[in-house]
Amino acid sequence: MKPGNIPVPAVRRLSLYLRQLDNLWRDDQRTISSRQLGDALKLTDAQVRKDLAYFGQFGQPGIGYNVEELIARIRGILGTDRMWNVLLVGAGHLGMALSAHRGFARKGFRVVAVFDDDKAKIGKRVPSLEGVTIQPVEEIARAVREKDIRLAIIAVPGEAAQGVTDRLLAAGVRGLLNFAPVSLDVDTAVAVSSVDLAVQLEQLSFQVGAAASLEDVKK
Amino acid sequence: MKPGNIPVPAVRRLSLYLRQLDNLWRDDQRTISSRQLGDALKLTDAQVRKDLAYFGQFGQPGIGYNVEELIARIRGILGTDRMWNVLLVGAGHLGMALSAHRGFARKGFRVVAVFDDDKAKIGKRVPSLEGVTIQPVEEIARAVREKDIRLAIIAVPGEAAQGVTDRLLAAGVRGLLNFAPVSLDVDTAVAVSSVDLAVQLEQLSFQVGAAASLEDVKK
Repeated sequence: MKPGNIPVPAVRRLSLYLRQLDNLWRDDQRTISSRQLGDALKLTDAQVRKDLAYFGQFGQPGIGYNVEELIARIRGILGTDRMWNVLLVGAGHLGMALSAHRGFARKGFRVVAVFDDDKAKIGKRVPSLEGVTIQPVEEIARAVREKDIRLAIIAVPGEAAQGVTDRLLAAGVRGLLNFAPVSLDVDTAVAVSSVDLAVQLEQLSFQVGAAASLEDVKK
Repeated sequence: MKPGNIPVPAVRRLSLYLRQLDNLWRDDQRTISSRQLGDALKLTDAQVRKDLAYFGQFGQPGIGYNVEELIARIRGILGTDRMWNVLLVGAGHLGMALSAHRGFARKGFRVVAVFDDDKAKIGKRVPSLEGVTIQPVEEIARAVREKDIRLAIIAVPGEAAQGVTDRLLAAGVRGLLNFAPVSLDVDTAVAVSSVDLAVQLEQLSFQVGAAASLEDVKK
């Protein structure tokens, strides 16, 4: 099956399976049943089997899946069986924390270039990244070309995000992880994943408030 | 309509409408049509009207919605018409960046306490938060009680996350924004929003890879 034909929710679950499998592997578990894999993620074993069947049948009845093989297959599908060079725009608090995020390297993502438009920051070394200094955004196109970069992380204020986006796409970047609190206007061929930290909390405040008002109703 | 009866995707869109409306308000726009609001978010005007109808009819035909009134209504629904005290566990790079995140305060979330289990960090001041020092995790229950905290941000390594979660829930926290790369095991009454930064990039690498392989197919 072509990767493009796997539904988006299934692709999200593949990431969760992979995370779970990586943890099992570290704990020396070598085989796993669909039920065990589902339990940890609160999914039925039927759902797990269906998702994994997108890339062929290879679990063994009564034994389950070989953890190592399953990790390799999922990585192959997700495209993280190779290293990706990633660039980061925005060297503020969040950007610097992201540049130091060890989880990225573990999954095969390497932040190889950092950009900002603040002259006071340009030329400074990024403490967490060996040999990386903060460059002006005008250098983005050159870095994308020289380092074969397809993915970028945007950690700039909302008002700067669209300009940065336009520059990234013109340079050939094809996937954006956006932390700026705005909706980006991009071509449909571009992959965008947005994380608005404040919106995440807002959704929780809704749920906690709604649960509280339901309790009031029950009383 | 009770908040608990609004479907989850509609609640997510309310946050996006609110973000858009806040921007419009800052740009001195005082009324907006459902079409304008939808265009910016790539939604149809019918969808916008349907979502906003969950809390009563109040747009005016030919004029549209009053921006200020709509902001107030959505904040009321989402529960951000008041301030929320929030606590943060994990004073590493990401935790410190989150403590400095200005977007939280803008939406009504105030980080009032920070915890870590690293003795070397305890007692240190949090630079971005006036009067806040890093406390040991054993102090969580007291802080929750004294500061009436319902929401917590978890920015600890994966292996520490479930222990921290259990402690938070025992203390009375009801909503968790989880940055640790694990699935938390919680009671269904607890609201959890998870942001796994590496998984976000992994999903992009899939999409960018899938788009590239589709291009191969077309050639």
